[in-house]
Amino acid sequence: MSATPIPTPSSPPPDILRAASMELVVTDLAASRHFYVDVLGLVVTEEDEGAVYLRTHEEFIHHNLVLRQGPVAAAAALSYRVRAPEDLDKAVAFYRELGCRVERRVEGFVAGVGDSVRIEDPLGFPYEFFHDVEHVERLAWRYDLYTPGTLVRLDHFNQVTPDVPRAVRYMEDLGFRVTEDIQDEAGTTYAAWMRRKPTVHDTAMTGGDGPRMHHVAFATHEKHNVLAICDKLGALRMSDRIERGPGRHGVSNAFYLYL
Amino acid sequence: MSATPIPTPSSPPPDILRAASMELVVTDLAASRHFYVDVLGLVVTEEDEGAVYLRTHEEFIHHNLVLRQGPVAAAAALSYRVRAPEDLDKAVAFYRELGCRVERRVEGFVAGVGDSVRIEDPLGFPYEFFHDVEHVERLAWRYDLYTPGTLVRLDHFNQVTPDVPRAVRYMEDLGFRVTEDIQDEAGTTYAAWMRRKPTVHDTAMTGGDGPRMHHVAFATHEKHNVLAICDKLGALRMSDRIERGPGRHGVSNAFYLYL
Amino acid sequence: MSATPIPTPSSPPPDILRAASMELVVTDLAASRHFYVDVLGLVVTEEDEGAVYLRTHEEFIHHNLVLRQGPVAAAAALSYRVRAPEDLDKAVAFYRELGCRVERRVEGFVAGVGDSVRIEDPLGFPYEFFHDVEHVERLAWRYDLYTPGTLVRLDHFNQVTPDVPRAVRYMEDLGFRVTEDIQDEAGTTYAAWMRRKPTVHDTAMTGGDGPRMHHVAFATHEKHNVLAICDKLGALRMSDRIERGPGRHGVSNAFYLYL
Amino acid sequence: MSATPIPTPSSPPPDILRAASMELVVTDLAASRHFYVDVLGLVVTEEDEGAVYLRTHEEFIHHNLVLRQGPVAAAAALSYRVRAPEDLDKAVAFYRELGCRVERRVEGFVAGVGDSVRIEDPLGFPYEFFHDVEHVERLAWRYDLYTPGTLVRLDHFNQVTPDVPRAVRYMEDLGFRVTEDIQDEAGTTYAAWMRRKPTVHDTAMTGGDGPRMHHVAFATHEKHNVLAICDKLGALRMSDRIERGPGRHGVSNAFYLYL
Repeated sequence: MSATPIPTPSSPPPDILRAASMELVVTDLAASRHFYVDVLGLVVTEEDEGAVYLRTHEEFIHHNLVLRQGPVAAAAALSYRVRAPEDLDKAVAFYRELGCRVERRVEGFVAGVGDSVRIEDPLGFPYEFFHDVEHVERLAWRYDLYTPGTLVRLDHFNQVTPDVPRAVRYMEDLGFRVTEDIQDEAGTTYAAWMRRKPTVHDTAMTGGDGPRMHHVAFATHEKHNVLAICDKLGALRMSDRIERGPGRHGVSNAFYLYL
Repeated sequence: MSATPIPTPSSPPPDILRAASMELVVTDLAASRHFYVDVLGLVVTEEDEGAVYLRTHEEFIHHNLVLRQGPVAAAAALSYRVRAPEDLDKAVAFYRELGCRVERRVEGFVAGVGDSVRIEDPLGFPYEFFHDVEHVERLAWRYDLYTPGTLVRLDHFNQVTPDVPRAVRYMEDLGFRVTEDIQDEAGTTYAAWMRRKPTVHDTAMTGGDGPRMHHVAFATHEKHNVLAICDKLGALRMSDRIERGPGRHGVSNAFYLYL
Repeated sequence: MSATPIPTPSSPPPDILRAASMELVVTDLAASRHFYVDVLGLVVTEEDEGAVYLRTHEEFIHHNLVLRQGPVAAAAALSYRVRAPEDLDKAVAFYRELGCRVERRVEGFVAGVGDSVRIEDPLGFPYEFFHDVEHVERLAWRYDLYTPGTLVRLDHFNQVTPDVPRAVRYMEDLGFRVTEDIQDEAGTTYAAWMRRKPTVHDTAMTGGDGPRMHHVAFATHEKHNVLAICDKLGALRMSDRIERGPGRHGVSNAFYLYL
Repeated sequence: MSATPIPTPSSPPPDILRAASMELVVTDLAASRHFYVDVLGLVVTEEDEGAVYLRTHEEFIHHNLVLRQGPVAAAAALSYRVRAPEDLDKAVAFYRELGCRVERRVEGFVAGVGDSVRIEDPLGFPYEFFHDVEHVERLAWRYDLYTPGTLVRLDHFNQVTPDVPRAVRYMEDLGFRVTEDIQDEAGTTYAAWMRRKPTVHDTAMTGGDGPRMHHVAFATHEKHNVLAICDKLGALRMSDRIERGPGRHGVSNAFYLYL
């Protein structure tokens, strides 16, 4: 693939802590709320007519998922938390130097989050960066509220982009470190896993027609929790929602289920 | 121990299928209902002002536990299901020959159960025998209703009696088979596990001051379900209800928790 | 299907306790031994040049699986344990009345088993019945020997036969009770699960070109044990041995894996 | 407690990645090897007459535990990996400024590790810092080698020291962040958990007569793995090695077992 490489900015990147939240535009808010709350069991932190703010069971920030009513299904923001307020200035400078569309709102773009920056990155993905966020009750000790398939934290994003090596170089400039990748016979990387927090990854780049969001992944504590979700979907006659799995990934060793 | 052995009746014993239910007299019905339903998650089949009928998640008969309001906490009945209606006639003859108090009610003693026999056995325990019973929805396929600590079936009773060898001989006359026992250094059996259904046991006799009910045991599918009950009790500040465990029994290999 | 029904013998059937063992003729004994012992972890009770006798981890009888070197892969015997020595006489009378080939050997047909009857049943399956059997060390307490995917007991057989209703009627005469079945739109049963021991089944009849052995199933304690077998097969580059699964059966609720 | 606070050095601390290894002096090397290798299943990377180098199942560095024959049982080193070779210079300057005993060996103090610094810190603990280390095969994909109780990684240390607040201030100067602590009724902290890597902790300070090593903790994947270790110890008649547990910690939510 011959696309021009994305230049490395002279401005330092923001210090990203972790993948924190995704905002999804959905065409049927009630149906999406049913799926994520009643079936998958995410916790409602706050909601209004146009949006639902959800978090995983062991999260202490306001939300990990925003469902927003809209005309076309889309990923509106892949949101990362940064280490300090100053990192927002760095994000602005970093992306302005790349010539990207940059918008900063001191009051935040969504409920529960303060000063934030949203940009459209050189690959075409909508990224958000924030530090200030409303802390909420962490339910990790509320064993009376766990279900057999409780989703305990947001684990990672997965993004589809046509030129993975180009995407990886840009992400490394942004401070990500590649933990694993897969190359074809000619030695070209067609999938790469990258992280800031020390799990296997915060996001991954998968080769394909993009920019597109491939998935957002939530983690359970143990493998039987994944099976419990399968069983529940079966009991609710929703097993057609299972696209692949359960199974184990060769690369990350993760025990997975795609919905 | 010098107690007179219980004679073996010439009448054949009833053909017992399994330990099926226990009736408990409780002094605070609301508190007991809270514990067994809200905390442990047993399913309410039916209830009225004076009693609550509960079943485990995978049971298909009307109840495995009856809680009945009364002035003094007691085990009112240890109830066994028999193979056929004729086995009730056998139970009547068997216990009459032993000189026991025997009562038969065609309409049953409790809701959901038909023709039944209640006796006070030679050891002083209140046993019930029945065949006809109302079948209810078995929730084994309702994975949407499982909790992390779901109790799936009644496993066994445990009874305290002063002379275990005497009790064992009587129970063998009643058709039970000893699966395991523990003997002291003099070779005297001071605990014995006995069964009709092919699990480790339907009931056990433990040496001590009796006749007393030691416990009724409910089973979970996997060990993590037992731990989830511990965690839930901790979250509800009820861990003082745990008398012993979690642990593993040397005799039956069971992973246990005493409440 | 219009095949003549199998007549009900006037002789009573033997009192079958449970599915106990299968004898397989294999064309490469070393390769089969590697698969069942080194990969799946069955325990070798005894072996000689021509045969290997294997048992599950919690079994107390001599074997649950016999692998015997031979020219053509086949199921040589589906073996059931009966309650008492007299039941062998009943088996002989029952099958002689049906006109079946019947052979009895006081010294047994295989190592570890005494007086036995082998018959070819009206459906064409080779059944064995025995009571006397060598007891071996039950490894249930040897937690130092468990592996992540330990097979703890033989659970059931599954047989393929063209006329399932005909097969079911014969099996009911033999004392089996149908626990579940599946019928097509015309109401014809095309699969049925039947038991003697009180699990879901000891054997099942599945419609198809037969008589053929469909599978023999071994049980693990928990679901993660099944996943551990998948992971091990993957690590050994043998995951092409997985024919289907892991998954959960709609009928029996079993969490399964087909190899 | 009135001990003089430990001054904050003007030199920046080394950038510590994680708790990586502990070196234990043991009085019976064969007995210790038996316990950690044959019973707990740690992997032997290398050994000679005087020492055994062990690692957890998913570790990629040379060792997480060194057992060294010696006259008196003791913790010889609590070893941390640092981000870059330059961090060793920082460690030297940081501890020299504190007046501590400092020793640096380019060839390392133990097998498998290169340029290293060992110091005795102001609390009296022997700390080691290193960056260069021999990488070994990570067994995370070797599912054929897992056991029911596999220890997958070193999780944390726990140290006993008389003045916890004094220790915490020093550890914060070293770059650790307190994740949780427990205070008595007078508001004095008597236990604190601190981390560099983003788990609950890399080490903890517990109030008591010290400096002493309280424990080194290894992690399993799931709770049933902890129970499998209990069962194995029981089977080997070694359950007297269990000092406390299994149970769940209130502070870290960890499911634990003390040996």
